[in-house]
Amino acid sequence: MISDARAVRVALLGCGTVGSEVVRLLHEQAEDLTARVGAPLELVGIAVRRLGRDRGPLPVPAHLFTTDALGLIKRDDVDVVIEVIGGIEPVRGWLVEALRSGKSVVTANKALLAEDGGALHDAAAEGGADLYFEAAVAGAIPLLRPLRESLHGDRITRVTGIVNGTTNFILSSMDASGAGFAEALEEATALGYAEADPTADVEGFDAAAKAAILASLAFHTRVRAEDVYREGITEVTAADVASAKAMGATIKLLCLAQRDNDAVSVRVHPAMIPRSHPLAGVGDAFNAVFVEAEAAGQLMFYGRGAGGAPTASAVLGDLVAVARHRLTGSRSAPESVYADLRIRPMGEALTRYHVSLDVADRAGVLAGVASVFARHDVSIATVRQSGRGAGATLVIVTHVAPDAALAATVEELRSLDIVRSIVSVLRVEGDS
Amino acid sequence: MISDARAVRVALLGCGTVGSEVVRLLHEQAEDLTARVGAPLELVGIAVRRLGRDRGPLPVPAHLFTTDALGLIKRDDVDVVIEVIGGIEPVRGWLVEALRSGKSVVTANKALLAEDGGALHDAAAEGGADLYFEAAVAGAIPLLRPLRESLHGDRITRVTGIVNGTTNFILSSMDASGAGFAEALEEATALGYAEADPTADVEGFDAAAKAAILASLAFHTRVRAEDVYREGITEVTAADVASAKAMGATIKLLCLAQRDNDAVSVRVHPAMIPRSHPLAGVGDAFNAVFVEAEAAGQLMFYGRGAGGAPTASAVLGDLVAVARHRLTGSRSAPESVYADLRIRPMGEALTRYHVSLDVADRAGVLAGVASVFARHDVSIATVRQSGRGAGATLVIVTHVAPDAALAATVEELRSLDIVRSIVSVLRVEGDS
Repeated sequence: MISDARAVRVALLGCGTVGSEVVRLLHEQAEDLTARVGAPLELVGIAVRRLGRDRGPLPVPAHLFTTDALGLIKRDDVDVVIEVIGGIEPVRGWLVEALRSGKSVVTANKALLAEDGGALHDAAAEGGADLYFEAAVAGAIPLLRPLRESLHGDRITRVTGIVNGTTNFILSSMDASGAGFAEALEEATALGYAEADPTADVEGFDAAAKAAILASLAFHTRVRAEDVYREGITEVTAADVASAKAMGATIKLLCLAQRDNDAVSVRVHPAMIPRSHPLAGVGDAFNAVFVEAEAAGQLMFYGRGAGGAPTASAVLGDLVAVARHRLTGSRSAPESVYADLRIRPMGEALTRYHVSLDVADRAGVLAGVASVFARHDVSIATVRQSGRGAGATLVIVTHVAPDAALAATVEELRSLDIVRSIVSVLRVEGDS
Repeated sequence: MISDARAVRVALLGCGTVGSEVVRLLHEQAEDLTARVGAPLELVGIAVRRLGRDRGPLPVPAHLFTTDALGLIKRDDVDVVIEVIGGIEPVRGWLVEALRSGKSVVTANKALLAEDGGALHDAAAEGGADLYFEAAVAGAIPLLRPLRESLHGDRITRVTGIVNGTTNFILSSMDASGAGFAEALEEATALGYAEADPTADVEGFDAAAKAAILASLAFHTRVRAEDVYREGITEVTAADVASAKAMGATIKLLCLAQRDNDAVSVRVHPAMIPRSHPLAGVGDAFNAVFVEAEAAGQLMFYGRGAGGAPTASAVLGDLVAVARHRLTGSRSAPESVYADLRIRPMGEALTRYHVSLDVADRAGVLAGVASVFARHDVSIATVRQSGRGAGATLVIVTHVAPDAALAATVEELRSLDIVRSIVSVLRVEGDS
């Protein structure tokens, strides 16, 4: 291999689904990439855990593979480090080492960024290096760059996203077929949309990490995964889905980040959104992020959130940017956290509830239920009553109120004589 | 006004709807913008055609206004020029002058970019200045930056956009109410969605300019407005809309840019798209651009395409980027046109047609019609026949074929005895 003096030298950490797609694209699009960067991109090493593993036919010589990731990172001829391993350790130390020594990093590691992004940003500042991570949220969708750069002249007020493909596939399938969660999860697993251990997806951990990254960028502050209120979709029932349908709505696992004054509220939970909302039409394993900004108004970004090729596309886009910076001696805008906002606890977050109750069918029931809402200062937007005979169903949608007041209302309803059971409780988003 | 030595000094050309919104945002968000840029943005002059005009209360001293645009541009203390006047002359000369002398330009001028973007890019290269124009296409939607940067590691194969809000409002309204074009245009005018002279919008000139800009960025080549095949929506009838509905489709004015091998086809025309396509749900005056790339797959960008505040948001986003570049001595990637692709004439473009015919109801009609398609080597995908008695309706949807063959087929059908009239001819996009 002839070395071009101006070549930008790339070390790749990890060679699984995404990594091998990165290798393939670097090879197949070498000519286009050289034209776009202004110099060739040269892959100088690939760090893997085991050398022997079958990775299919990759267009690189075997001697590029190594198990010594740290040694690869420390090589003098490495300009850029791409990390597609994932997880916190040992990757954190490696990337901090790379950035501190002035090597630019492109990473898809949402868990690490959400857990300790500050450490990476600080190391990047120290080393004068670029830290890019478009692939960490919503895979192929160019989303972080617009938030970091294009919308810098505006004030973002709210970000509402569908950022986990597995749960969106499950909820879309429950919506289409009326199936319960367990059945839909089984289908998703069979089709390869859910992993053998689906906890990170269905319990909302993956979405919470992405929510932390999105909120940090949108609001110029540091938000960590632990700051994000999180509820998964395992408790969403076929009855909830039917309730949503009856309201002209659908259920999505949303990540929400909202700023008001000096505080930011970041949360992940299932919620009903009206079918007319642009996010309602986002089906299958697609991702979409809906951004509201003061001047720009409503924006939405839609595309594939996962998969080898889509994620590799985002990694390569970042790679072109940092490689160009190496050649021109420039770098990206550093982390912008000047706003330094307080995290608003979930109890203070303003939300709306949809509550469906199985009640005794006798006079005074509505009055009794309504008085519970009133006692907690929760204003009711609509009430729908149906059913005759032994019992009736009461469906109540509230106006916005602090989440704690709404939760306390539901708690008190549970203990009410006239309430036989609570059929469904869901937050409502997307039309206020 | 105390001058900060590090301030980035901005000249504004034009102070209409967008310009006054830019002035307002610069003032209101001064603190945030300073934090994001790393230095204050100082508005040092505003060039307008007439000084006396009432622009409402603007938060700037009267002495900033001038009618001498060129004089303002040439001032030594101007770092960045924002242009929101529009039109080719005299703006072209002014922006070339600014760029050549090393002043960065942020412009929303789609007509100029589509007509002679090359002259601006060349001047930017000569002067070592930035040329940013996010606001020129799809207003507030961060779209050009992702195309220019985020997707640089991928290969875009097709771009399909709804990039004109006026026509999308008219077509959405025709779809919802069954109204004809004239009636829907009248409504759009009354509501302020269409201008007194709607030619640029309804004849597709505005969309064609944007198509040229999008195609240039997506395919790394130069495409000018004159290279874009263009049909407006004035011929779209209520019968067309009804035909589309019967097919489970809707009619949109699409801009399409497609690359195959060494050629690019760029066109603007009304087309039927299935209601299940993400673009079908883009209603009112919203814009959306659907991008298909080899690795990333399908992406969509959605938001407001026009209006003072959304356009100003895009201008300010660009301003923050170029201002940061001034401070750090860096600049954006220059124009990327290495691919230098041939423009494929419309006759060679591969399209699909939906043809609805009023035919005599007698034996052999379908055979007669089908033979015309066969003669032009056009393959039929579906046929639907309906109606009894005096006449029948034949609805034919073709497979993809060169547009010239499809047009010739329709021409020959016109002269066929058994065809009483051609009810509707529309191209079909979005599901192949």
